[in-house]
Amino acid sequence: MTSTAVTDGSTSALSLVVQKFGGTSVADPDRIRAVADHVARTRRDGHDVVVVVSAMGKTTDELIRLAQDVCPEPGGREMDMLLTAGERISMALLCMAIETEGVPAASFTGSQAGIVTDTVHGKARILEVRGDRLREAIANGQVAVVAGFQGVSTERDVTTLGRGGSDTTAVALAAVLKAEVCEIYTDVAGVYTADPRVVPNARRLPAVSFEEMQEMAATGGRVLALRSVEFARNHGVVLHVRSSFTWEQGTWVNEEGPMEQAIISGVTHDTSEAKITVTHVPDQPGIAARLFGALADDEVNVDMIVQNTSTGGTTDISFTVPRADLAAAMRVSEALGPEIGAESVTHDAEIGRVSIVGAGMKTNPGVAARMFRVLSTEGVNIEMISTSSIRISCVVRARDVERAVKALHAEFELDKPLA
Amino acid sequence: MTSTAVTDGSTSALSLVVQKFGGTSVADPDRIRAVADHVARTRRDGHDVVVVVSAMGKTTDELIRLAQDVCPEPGGREMDMLLTAGERISMALLCMAIETEGVPAASFTGSQAGIVTDTVHGKARILEVRGDRLREAIANGQVAVVAGFQGVSTERDVTTLGRGGSDTTAVALAAVLKAEVCEIYTDVAGVYTADPRVVPNARRLPAVSFEEMQEMAATGGRVLALRSVEFARNHGVVLHVRSSFTWEQGTWVNEEGPMEQAIISGVTHDTSEAKITVTHVPDQPGIAARLFGALADDEVNVDMIVQNTSTGGTTDISFTVPRADLAAAMRVSEALGPEIGAESVTHDAEIGRVSIVGAGMKTNPGVAARMFRVLSTEGVNIEMISTSSIRISCVVRARDVERAVKALHAEFELDKPLA
Repeated sequence: MTSTAVTDGSTSALSLVVQKFGGTSVADPDRIRAVADHVARTRRDGHDVVVVVSAMGKTTDELIRLAQDVCPEPGGREMDMLLTAGERISMALLCMAIETEGVPAASFTGSQAGIVTDTVHGKARILEVRGDRLREAIANGQVAVVAGFQGVSTERDVTTLGRGGSDTTAVALAAVLKAEVCEIYTDVAGVYTADPRVVPNARRLPAVSFEEMQEMAATGGRVLALRSVEFARNHGVVLHVRSSFTWEQGTWVNEEGPMEQAIISGVTHDTSEAKITVTHVPDQPGIAARLFGALADDEVNVDMIVQNTSTGGTTDISFTVPRADLAAAMRVSEALGPEIGAESVTHDAEIGRVSIVGAGMKTNPGVAARMFRVLSTEGVNIEMISTSSIRISCVVRARDVERAVKALHAEFELDKPLA
Repeated sequence: MTSTAVTDGSTSALSLVVQKFGGTSVADPDRIRAVADHVARTRRDGHDVVVVVSAMGKTTDELIRLAQDVCPEPGGREMDMLLTAGERISMALLCMAIETEGVPAASFTGSQAGIVTDTVHGKARILEVRGDRLREAIANGQVAVVAGFQGVSTERDVTTLGRGGSDTTAVALAAVLKAEVCEIYTDVAGVYTADPRVVPNARRLPAVSFEEMQEMAATGGRVLALRSVEFARNHGVVLHVRSSFTWEQGTWVNEEGPMEQAIISGVTHDTSEAKITVTHVPDQPGIAARLFGALADDEVNVDMIVQNTSTGGTTDISFTVPRADLAAAMRVSEALGPEIGAESVTHDAEIGRVSIVGAGMKTNPGVAARMFRVLSTEGVNIEMISTSSIRISCVVRARDVERAVKALHAEFELDKPLA
């Protein structure tokens, strides 16, 4: 297992560490100096270091506001050009602060770092990471500071990688440069058994498996974006999620997960979605394909899909979409309704989803029944259910979400460390 | 003469116009929209347009402050990386605003525009302008919006061009793309016979020659940086300095200058310099060369140099330097003083320079005498004098500068238009 405390100086010299710092970690000059101090310490401990940095604090939001002020629907190419100014500022400042610590450093844009993407502005996918200039910088004894979230397209235009993009940059660089670990520094101290704002006695997990982390990220865990976890898993990049405020050991994410597996690792929730129900459609082949094909054509991100068993030759199809996509999803569904013989199309934005995630579920039957019983005891009505081999999700009323999370956290004794 | 009103639609279609907008012209979203409206109008009038833009308002100052907050002496490479974020923001926003007007536009960094410089960070010199992507954009019917002030070095690092750099970018692009005119939009309506803040009845000049503009820029005229005027002259780029607030006709700068030549075109002044005097140095060959060689080695910008006629085998040498360079200049001069046999090295920061500039001087003898008489009548003592064929400069007490400018403006009747 590679998950030793690499930045505490306990491993062999000259291993490469990728350290990614999010916006809150570099929100102001004080924070930038604190991060520079940590990077310099890691370097002096004998590690090569590649740093990936996001834009400072609320910079990206401010730039988006400016854009909306001059243009109702800014084009993707210019929006990407605009937003990439954010990391340019933070990475140059961080470099200066690292050099002030007496450690040589050089900053690189996504383009200079050789992060080549496709041409889909705003959510480009990485096609290739060249990294030659980073290797040169490392060979010269420099800390390479790379702008997160950005790349250059095959058409030589500046692109951004979309939500969680800086994590993806860090993981991609860690994979290509064969880093020992990719440390994701953030404003929380790791991955918790539930959102500590909802469950004050939630416990930090010392380790989770890639599989569990994927399910958590997909169901409302806000610490890592799903895409970067998938990328890390596919390329075998060990992640260490930890705090840039306390610098303590956080949560390791790797293939194995924790040494001792609890039944449930965590409870997640998400109140950012809405539900659409298409009622009484004929129970015939091809109906669902037409509906979800049309939604995909309109770039609506459909999440959960539940179809009831047919009664009297018709069935109801319910699905959830991000609330931002609700209007588009309704437009598509209502337009298609008559064609596919639906009786009605209804929507409901007052829903929430509560999920329990844990690899231990595979070997412990009865977990689902225990979840449903707890919700029933709490008087929480279940509107939709979907499961994977290590996750069970229930759609409930939005107002019931916090109560459900607390009850499930207590039921599975997640506040207690494993013996 | 090419100085027809190209953006009023009066010339042939498809001529190329370069339009440069300074920081105050794009200081906020309202200003950006106003500029976009003007660019779109120029395009619809049948011109191809390349826009060069500076950072918004005080952005550059704010970025410098942030840098100083994390690093006492930021390195040039990172400083350039930081500062170039400013134009990135303004150019992306301007592009969006132009597209909102229904005119296709695309932004280009200095690197994307093919502006290749040497490796001197902070004041790089342009070595080559490739411009292929701009030509492509123009051929596609797009307005090309280019980040001013920046380029990419032969080492593939981001560079900035130093003071007045956006003007230089605009002139260089106008030269390479063979633009009909390079319009420099600013917050004043053109080149004036004197600074209107000092002389309220100063008059806007309809045209000045390159030669006059160079002398004005070198002696305190703040509208254009000297370097960009030199560049324009060397490459025959016609300039039109005008207001982005009123959009009225401004001042044309070209080879010919005005049709009717007055004796004097303008009075300039500069209170940003200090004077150093090295006294009683032996009047021998090589003394001045050693002194100014040493200053040049320390990168001190020496401006005026005056050496008196030798009396008794020794002479005094006086010279002016930007006040920011005074400490360095004194250090060099005092260190060298004993070696070159100087009696003393003194300095004076309370000086100012008043200059009169005009091509008409060449054919009108007695202009200098008239200038000295006016200053004498005003009780202004002249401390140093230097001249060129079309300029006379006098160093006076800083407190006398405004009085001198007003008196000279009146003496040469610069408030009265030519008959």
